[in-house]
Amino acid sequence: MSSNGVAPAGSGWAGPVAYLALLAAGVGLFFLIRTAGEGLTAPPAPDGAAPVGRAVPGKVDVVLHVTATLAAVIALGFALGRAFRYVGQPPVIGEVVAGLLLGPSVLGAVYPPAMHVLIPPASADPGGRVPAALQAVAQLGVILYMFLVGLELNAAQLGERAGATVAVSHASIVVPFVLGAGLALGLYPGYSHAGVPFTSFALFLGAAMAVTAFPVLARILADRGLDKTPLGVVALGCAAADDVTAWCLLAFVVGVARAEVGQAAAVVAGAAAFVAFMFLLARPALARAARRLDAGPLPPAAVPAAFLLVLLSALATEAIGVHAVFGAFLLGAVVPHDTRVARDFAARLRDPVTVLLLPAFFAYTGLRTEIGLLTSPADWLWCGAVILVATVGKVGGTVAAARLTGSGWREAAALGALMNTRGLMGLIVLNVGLDLGVISPTLFAMMVLMALATTVATAPLLRWLAPEPAGRPAG
Amino acid sequence: MSSNGVAPAGSGWAGPVAYLALLAAGVGLFFLIRTAGEGLTAPPAPDGAAPVGRAVPGKVDVVLHVTATLAAVIALGFALGRAFRYVGQPPVIGEVVAGLLLGPSVLGAVYPPAMHVLIPPASADPGGRVPAALQAVAQLGVILYMFLVGLELNAAQLGERAGATVAVSHASIVVPFVLGAGLALGLYPGYSHAGVPFTSFALFLGAAMAVTAFPVLARILADRGLDKTPLGVVALGCAAADDVTAWCLLAFVVGVARAEVGQAAAVVAGAAAFVAFMFLLARPALARAARRLDAGPLPPAAVPAAFLLVLLSALATEAIGVHAVFGAFLLGAVVPHDTRVARDFAARLRDPVTVLLLPAFFAYTGLRTEIGLLTSPADWLWCGAVILVATVGKVGGTVAAARLTGSGWREAAALGALMNTRGLMGLIVLNVGLDLGVISPTLFAMMVLMALATTVATAPLLRWLAPEPAGRPAG
Repeated sequence: MSSNGVAPAGSGWAGPVAYLALLAAGVGLFFLIRTAGEGLTAPPAPDGAAPVGRAVPGKVDVVLHVTATLAAVIALGFALGRAFRYVGQPPVIGEVVAGLLLGPSVLGAVYPPAMHVLIPPASADPGGRVPAALQAVAQLGVILYMFLVGLELNAAQLGERAGATVAVSHASIVVPFVLGAGLALGLYPGYSHAGVPFTSFALFLGAAMAVTAFPVLARILADRGLDKTPLGVVALGCAAADDVTAWCLLAFVVGVARAEVGQAAAVVAGAAAFVAFMFLLARPALARAARRLDAGPLPPAAVPAAFLLVLLSALATEAIGVHAVFGAFLLGAVVPHDTRVARDFAARLRDPVTVLLLPAFFAYTGLRTEIGLLTSPADWLWCGAVILVATVGKVGGTVAAARLTGSGWREAAALGALMNTRGLMGLIVLNVGLDLGVISPTLFAMMVLMALATTVATAPLLRWLAPEPAGRPAG
Repeated sequence: MSSNGVAPAGSGWAGPVAYLALLAAGVGLFFLIRTAGEGLTAPPAPDGAAPVGRAVPGKVDVVLHVTATLAAVIALGFALGRAFRYVGQPPVIGEVVAGLLLGPSVLGAVYPPAMHVLIPPASADPGGRVPAALQAVAQLGVILYMFLVGLELNAAQLGERAGATVAVSHASIVVPFVLGAGLALGLYPGYSHAGVPFTSFALFLGAAMAVTAFPVLARILADRGLDKTPLGVVALGCAAADDVTAWCLLAFVVGVARAEVGQAAAVVAGAAAFVAFMFLLARPALARAARRLDAGPLPPAAVPAAFLLVLLSALATEAIGVHAVFGAFLLGAVVPHDTRVARDFAARLRDPVTVLLLPAFFAYTGLRTEIGLLTSPADWLWCGAVILVATVGKVGGTVAAARLTGSGWREAAALGALMNTRGLMGLIVLNVGLDLGVISPTLFAMMVLMALATTVATAPLLRWLAPEPAGRPAG
């Protein structure tokens, strides 16, 4: 036994014997202490103290419910995503449907106790702690995801065909926006209430119709080998321009809806100042920092700083009065995407965000969607009208603009079909509207169905209008 | 204008003119619609409907508060972590202190309105939605972190010096456990209440004293270049064995505390069955799956499946009645850590978990710690006694066992100093106790101070007992 080294195992009898003696002494001593302690008296239990180990009345096990909900929506969403892939649909459809199946629309309507394993009924959770917890996880996921989308945005060759792209993009926003606002004339008397000003209602309906899901679109194009074709490049560019425009529009809508009449201007001015700050000051500073970071090994402060920037941008826009996701998205858009540090950070973030946190958003959306609120034939007719107007506006506006900027009919139609994809972006916009109280739960359910239907329609329309290049199996 | 290609930008006048006309028409149409719509009447607002854009009374902006809290604790934790590094302390100290500073102990005591920006007062958030949301994010972070710790555990050369390691480890658990249980005799009459059985109280105090922070220890050793020395290898092995033992002990304690007397056996049996399942069935299956995955490119199902396994393991132990983190930790421990798929997954998970989600745990712990509850000199004397007993038990037990298995005085003392690190593990155990109602908020504050003090003491003790090897600057 050198006094300078640690001894090898099992050196003689002393060790094991002492060890066993120690264990025995430990157990024995604990029982002695226990016997002594059982005789002690503690002060009486304070009023309202829960029995040890029991849930405090009305305090549900938040961790249990959130973990169960996450596990259910990840598993079901992945399985359905695989199934939908077989019929030529993007996986996001599976995730959206999984959220709807687990919520009150299906599981809650068929067998409520099963849904209550995931989300306890309001009677067991009067404070709404579980939905709040799920919302926090979901919004964290959406904030980080929108940051990633903003980063990807740069990757699209947005600037290369700027003229045609901007024209098609704006047409594909203006036409559904106006038609959506027009539809508000029909929906307002039946599906709103006097507390909602018509202007907010119409602006929001227009914005919800005008949105396009850039990331879903990118996935559909890549799946079909179209992302490098002229059609694919213009479609990606348009969708990117659409996203920027639609989010600015939404920021404006939220500003108007949230603020008092006198404060609306302040919100809009705040948002404009934030955009100006991000493009004029943050963008060059971030570009300089990123190039400098690319030159050497990554300092330990880089990762916390990156997360902090995302959170602070989200916080800034939320505090200004527009939505948190807008700030995260804008930060992603102004970060130079072609630097090593940006690519590395995005690559590390992608799996935890898209696979773990974002499913919470689908579960949260599904939880809030009650398709059962659509009861009368009139409700379903209006729902059909919403889907029809959204599709006609988006496809029509895109086709007309594409034709006017010189595309052939076929390309124009394919572009129209692509731009009609609402996907995840549509759901984010709708949740904002429901949070604000601008749309009712009934209208929210209609619009969720609209977002789902337009996304589902994209792949078949595209397959019909723009068959896959030779050498790939036709869908 | 080929009909087979998309036109380049700016082709003639037709495009721009049509584009401007479209925009003008869009704006004009919207104002027409608005004029028509302003005359419409909607049904009266339902009872309890919030004005549009306003928070529903009592419904705080959960996303705003959680984002602000996360941003604050990440920024402050990182800054303090850097500062503590300068004085030779591990960064986790900075994160723990940041949580305490932002909570009721400091910020809430000095200037409550500043704390209420992060965590609204109970009057504004009667349902406790913000704490619940923060808890969900924190627990998600801790679950994933404990999975990573379990993965790392394999990396320690646990098996190589098994005899000495197990003896030292168990001694370093048994002695503080017994002393902690003994201290319960003194603490029970003053800091508990009649609703808490003495056995649960004593078991929990023992377990909280017996824990060692494997990850913090690993970081301290790596920082000081000791991780490849004989001392470092035995210390890591002991800490790893300590963690496994302490978590099993905690699982038992929680089982006893949670259950009715009659159900305690069921909880313990359930936990034992889960452990047996993980080692006997899950371990070989995971090993086979991991080797097969290593042979080819990663299938798309691998990442969702991995997250799902972590969540399901956590869920299983939470449902059995032991804590969610135990399942995640055990899963990490049985996954073969030396496979490519495990290394890749751990590498991707590390940053989002440790930098983004885990700080929520420090904020959550800080929020629950009210050092202000320690008012009388007697409170502070007991707090000192807790720190003293924890240190004497851990250091004494380790030193005695190390001496008995053949170490020199110096190595034995250094090992004792290292094993005294409670760090993050200590806080996780304490939160479990507070959740169960086994310890009071006052005792929780004392024990948090104990975890902090023992962790802070590690580096100076180590520097004193085992100076750094030549060639590295002395602390």
